Amino acid sequence: MIKNDRLLKAIRGEQTDRYPVWLMRQAGRILKEYRQVRAQFKDFKQFIATPEAAAEVTIQPVDILDVDAAIIFSDILVVPDAMGFSYAMEENKGPVFEKKFENEESLNELNIPDVYDNLNYVAEAIKLAKQGLNNRVPLIGFAGAPFTLFSYIAEGQGSKTFSKARKLLYTQPVLCHKALDKITQTTIAYLKMQVKAGVDVVQLFDSWAGFASPEQYSEFGVQYLKKICDAITEVPVTVFAKGAFFARKEIAQLNCNTIGIDWNMDMQESRSIIGNNKTIQGNLDPCALYGNFDQVKAQSLKMLRKFEGYRHIANLGHGVYPDTNPENVKCFINTIKEYEIK
Amino acid sequence: MIKNDRLLKAIRGEQTDRYPVWLMRQAGRILKEYRQVRAQFKDFKQFIATPEAAAEVTIQPVDILDVDAAIIFSDILVVPDAMGFSYAMEENKGPVFEKKFENEESLNELNIPDVYDNLNYVAEAIKLAKQGLNNRVPLIGFAGAPFTLFSYIAEGQGSKTFSKARKLLYTQPVLCHKALDKITQTTIAYLKMQVKAGVDVVQLFDSWAGFASPEQYSEFGVQYLKKICDAITEVPVTVFAKGAFFARKEIAQLNCNTIGIDWNMDMQESRSIIGNNKTIQGNLDPCALYGNFDQVKAQSLKMLRKFEGYRHIANLGHGVYPDTNPENVKCFINTIKEYEIK
Repeated sequence: MIKNDRLLKAIRGEQTDRYPVWLMRQAGRILKEYRQVRAQFKDFKQFIATPEAAAEVTIQPVDILDVDAAIIFSDILVVPDAMGFSYAMEENKGPVFEKKFENEESLNELNIPDVYDNLNYVAEAIKLAKQGLNNRVPLIGFAGAPFTLFSYIAEGQGSKTFSKARKLLYTQPVLCHKALDKITQTTIAYLKMQVKAGVDVVQLFDSWAGFASPEQYSEFGVQYLKKICDAITEVPVTVFAKGAFFARKEIAQLNCNTIGIDWNMDMQESRSIIGNNKTIQGNLDPCALYGNFDQVKAQSLKMLRKFEGYRHIANLGHGVYPDTNPENVKCFINTIKEYEIK
Repeated sequence: MIKNDRLLKAIRGEQTDRYPVWLMRQAGRILKEYRQVRAQFKDFKQFIATPEAAAEVTIQPVDILDVDAAIIFSDILVVPDAMGFSYAMEENKGPVFEKKFENEESLNELNIPDVYDNLNYVAEAIKLAKQGLNNRVPLIGFAGAPFTLFSYIAEGQGSKTFSKARKLLYTQPVLCHKALDKITQTTIAYLKMQVKAGVDVVQLFDSWAGFASPEQYSEFGVQYLKKICDAITEVPVTVFAKGAFFARKEIAQLNCNTIGIDWNMDMQESRSIIGNNKTIQGNLDPCALYGNFDQVKAQSLKMLRKFEGYRHIANLGHGVYPDTNPENVKCFINTIKEYEIK
């Protein structure tokens, strides 16, 4: 049994002595201990494909920051990579794909792989992380949501508009649905593998949801989130659709326990849209961690005062930014821990 | 008197035979005629500082696309440039500033210039454009909103997060307010110069509003929009705060006639938040123009059916994307023109 089970209780809506807290991107980015492990690998993909290293950096934030959950260290793009759309992580540019998804031929090249053949290293990392955590806190597994993964392969790289990807959604909707369906099938198998390997919760990251119009996201985004939420019955599911303020009502209807919200979305308004049957995770602006301790504390308290009842998980509204001082992150975490639930 | 005054009528909430239509970024980007003029200049800044050239490309969309308004061809960054924060327009990267705004010294270096000394070329371009338009359609002037201009100089360049700029807002709010105040004063003088030169309407572009949290935007964004809206009494003002769905209620309280909305914001929901005392401008997804004519028409009609009453100006929810086929833009425009207001 997991000793610190506050996260799981909050997910189920049960009473806790205080709000659980963890940070998106807590593994990686901000810790010098992470950078020491990272430096042993020339290539980022080689790093995440090495279970011992991935497990080590997964556990670091639990040891160093004393957060209430670990999240497996990996990358959402391992899924398209395993499906035949390989990427390279370029310095200062992010992921760049070898080829773009653009037509029927691309659809043929998009395989539904056996996740145990292609992504077993993630399962291995999860098993090692579970061992290292030794039931101190829950371990969160994750995957990119189909809309976001499709946006990446259709765009071929990151973008400020994702206009190439969204062009395809307008011009070839049937083709896109077929691709989204393949990605969804793979994602379900991938998450089920993670569950078997030991994760206690899974989170879907729909990082580019905010580029879509409400109708487009409903058709090409939420529909596939639904399939995944319906298929993953073994552990609770968290959905984080960044920027999709317009889809909160629809997301609230999904078979998920927790909904992540970003810092653009007002907590109280989100609660009134989402209702009381879901846990809300978020949503401090990552930039709020740049201040001095007094400022960090004040901003964290401002967020906490907007929480209502137990169904909240304290987190940022986006991944922690790389140049954030870990001491400020600790200040954020401690402010959450000292706050009494009313 | 302006012959086609549909835009002005819609702004005032008066009856029109059909909805007026124009496109953000219609001048530049998509027309081959624009690229011919652009090719005469090595440097983008030199191009916009040449009144004859700026006036020529301002008029092109009226001649070629038959839109209901012209918008003066310029760049929002001419204001920080004139204030002492010079930028270079780098290929495939966008604007890069010579120095960043980061401390008290930066505040001293941020001048409030005499706009007639530094930005007179914009006034000259406006006068020439007015002559060339010969009262066929109204001419729109514009400026970047203070929040966006400040974000640019504090970040030093474009960004996917504007985290450096927003860090400063958290850590040095007093300094930032002083800078925003200087930018606001300059912007007011700049817009008044544009009005004197002949523009019929002005639009404020708050392109990076969507990076802020609701509270941050209220404090550092809306407050300065208000000062400008209160100061510009000579012509109607349009406010377009991209991504600031959370601020629609506050923006609806400003002394402006028109509110621009992006394609993430549902038209009907926006109308219910904004009320009936403002004209709404927008909001077709620019990617919707990538389809074939049938698709473009269907998407345009979908938007039009969400309009209610006369207080609407048809436009995109963002600037038209550079690789859009001008024939598709014409299809969008014609669909608007053929649509009967119910």
